[in-house]
Amino acid sequence: MGIRAFTHDTLAQRVILDTGRVVDRVLGEAERLRVSRPMLISTEGTHQVAERLAVALPPALHWQNAVQHVPREVADAATAAARKAGADGLICIGGGSATGLAKAVALETSLPIIAVPTTYAASEATPVWGITEERTKTTGVDPVVLPTVVVYDADLVATLPRGMAIASGLNAMAHAVDSLWAPKSDPINRALALESVRALAPALRKLASGDEQHAREQALYGCYLSGVAFASAGSGLHHKICHVLGGTFNLPHAETHAVVLRHVMALNLPAVPNAADALATALGGEDAVNELDRLSHDVGAPHSLADLGMPEDGIPEAVDRILAAAPTNNPVPLTSANLTALLATAFSGEHMAVVPH
Amino acid sequence: MGIRAFTHDTLAQRVILDTGRVVDRVLGEAERLRVSRPMLISTEGTHQVAERLAVALPPALHWQNAVQHVPREVADAATAAARKAGADGLICIGGGSATGLAKAVALETSLPIIAVPTTYAASEATPVWGITEERTKTTGVDPVVLPTVVVYDADLVATLPRGMAIASGLNAMAHAVDSLWAPKSDPINRALALESVRALAPALRKLASGDEQHAREQALYGCYLSGVAFASAGSGLHHKICHVLGGTFNLPHAETHAVVLRHVMALNLPAVPNAADALATALGGEDAVNELDRLSHDVGAPHSLADLGMPEDGIPEAVDRILAAAPTNNPVPLTSANLTALLATAFSGEHMAVVPH
Repeated sequence: MGIRAFTHDTLAQRVILDTGRVVDRVLGEAERLRVSRPMLISTEGTHQVAERLAVALPPALHWQNAVQHVPREVADAATAAARKAGADGLICIGGGSATGLAKAVALETSLPIIAVPTTYAASEATPVWGITEERTKTTGVDPVVLPTVVVYDADLVATLPRGMAIASGLNAMAHAVDSLWAPKSDPINRALALESVRALAPALRKLASGDEQHAREQALYGCYLSGVAFASAGSGLHHKICHVLGGTFNLPHAETHAVVLRHVMALNLPAVPNAADALATALGGEDAVNELDRLSHDVGAPHSLADLGMPEDGIPEAVDRILAAAPTNNPVPLTSANLTALLATAFSGEHMAVVPH
Repeated sequence: MGIRAFTHDTLAQRVILDTGRVVDRVLGEAERLRVSRPMLISTEGTHQVAERLAVALPPALHWQNAVQHVPREVADAATAAARKAGADGLICIGGGSATGLAKAVALETSLPIIAVPTTYAASEATPVWGITEERTKTTGVDPVVLPTVVVYDADLVATLPRGMAIASGLNAMAHAVDSLWAPKSDPINRALALESVRALAPALRKLASGDEQHAREQALYGCYLSGVAFASAGSGLHHKICHVLGGTFNLPHAETHAVVLRHVMALNLPAVPNAADALATALGGEDAVNELDRLSHDVGAPHSLADLGMPEDGIPEAVDRILAAAPTNNPVPLTSANLTALLATAFSGEHMAVVPH
């Protein structure tokens, strides 16, 4: 791919993948970071692992009340509790809710985070935090909330329902693909994004056809890199569209990503032929859109926004909102016409034929 | 490529490529890092750029005496001068000597480094320092010596003699390829190494056939990633061999790398078929060794250790030293027999036929 002027920030992080050894590895990292009185954060499905860890390294406190979207009052209560207990580090075990709460506490206390993810959400790979107050989510970027260490153990994602694993993996792939043209896209985050796609595509097929440890490891690896790439490249057209659709029509997050991605690819890829070729190769074929269609079919992804409950007469409103929010450096200039066509085909699930530019 | 258990440390660094804008970009970074009294380090070929920078940002001192291999007395004198002048940051403009001296000063002072490379040495991408005392070079790894920012400007490498640019680019490719099986090789540094090869192969061909800005930018990008990958994966068999040959027979550094690499590939690649396929693709063909041979031919790389002045009767001694130094986890177990065969073919420049395992 052509190299032009760029500025790339690589963020420091240790990432470990070691299936079956999560407790040992977290203990080793806590020792290395001189964390001896951690605040342990777990969620409903992860208390058991947390208990095993707590036996080996008694925490200053064990917080078992991480909830979705990090409500302000929970963030404040957790931060106060961490301070009161004299915690010297944060160990979060769970999905986006556990990681998100640890980040909210780190934002106030600067305590280092050891993140143990149990889903494919990839929040652990980003310095993005979010706190919800009066139904409004405020987000921000601060290097202090990036986990110092991430410990992946593929056994911890083994109990995820298959449909959720697939949707979440496709969501990760969307993070990676959108990095190819996002506002801060550069050769390094594009290379990481393509490596993510190379890992995710075969991993998702294997996850769909029956679980196995190797597929889970490969999916965790691919998700991790999708988070790294996305955090570096920023939010591209795909994410702006999904954000508008989710916020305006309350559509399900991961499924919306799964439906919309191929339509954004069909619009943008002709304008970035090098990225299009590299993405096709990463997906294992000649044409990236065809390959994504094959993959979506193979893993049983949803096909249309109609199926997800979007009202057809909502398209004009969505187009206006997307036009207002979309990156100004999208490789194809955005117009009411091409966005309307994009949403219309995504709504019906028909393959996009020609998109007016 | 298969994912197994791994531990990967990503080091924080900002990297900028912006041809023609080096002075502006360094000023901007100095301001961001609150460096207002830098120690400026330049070498014979780079005083002019340093002067332009010094006009815009008057340095606390301008050190114009960076020499090869960082002699201890120079390192000590520079460190004392930095302290005396009250420098609050280091800006080094030059190749390995300038970067190496800045690292030696940072090792003692913890001052942040803004590195402006003018060769393809890639020291700016690693936390490795080296200081030479009584003809012995001591090296070490310390995150404090990793430049905080690297600013590449392809105009600064335009005056490099073509032969030196090619040799140095092949050296970088050797760093990348050796990362595929080095002791701390992991999926992430392998992905960065392969991206480095994808950039370097076409860039070297273009550099060989006549200089042009785009080729220099692509070569700088590829070299940078080779340094990142190598710093992460550690020294593999290839580097141990070149280190022994250089130290024992005083062979020229970059040229030795250029000769030896294909023979190490011929030995190791059959044992790592996934890496072999990925490397062949990165080099633009079906078979990695053939592709490297084609590239070496196209860019006029040296062919044999004999041409570089190695004595043929030195092979047994070299084999013993390599056996003592080589990584124990090389994909092919190393023996006197396979190393002797490897060096014999590298000596003669004949293509390696079959290497006994």
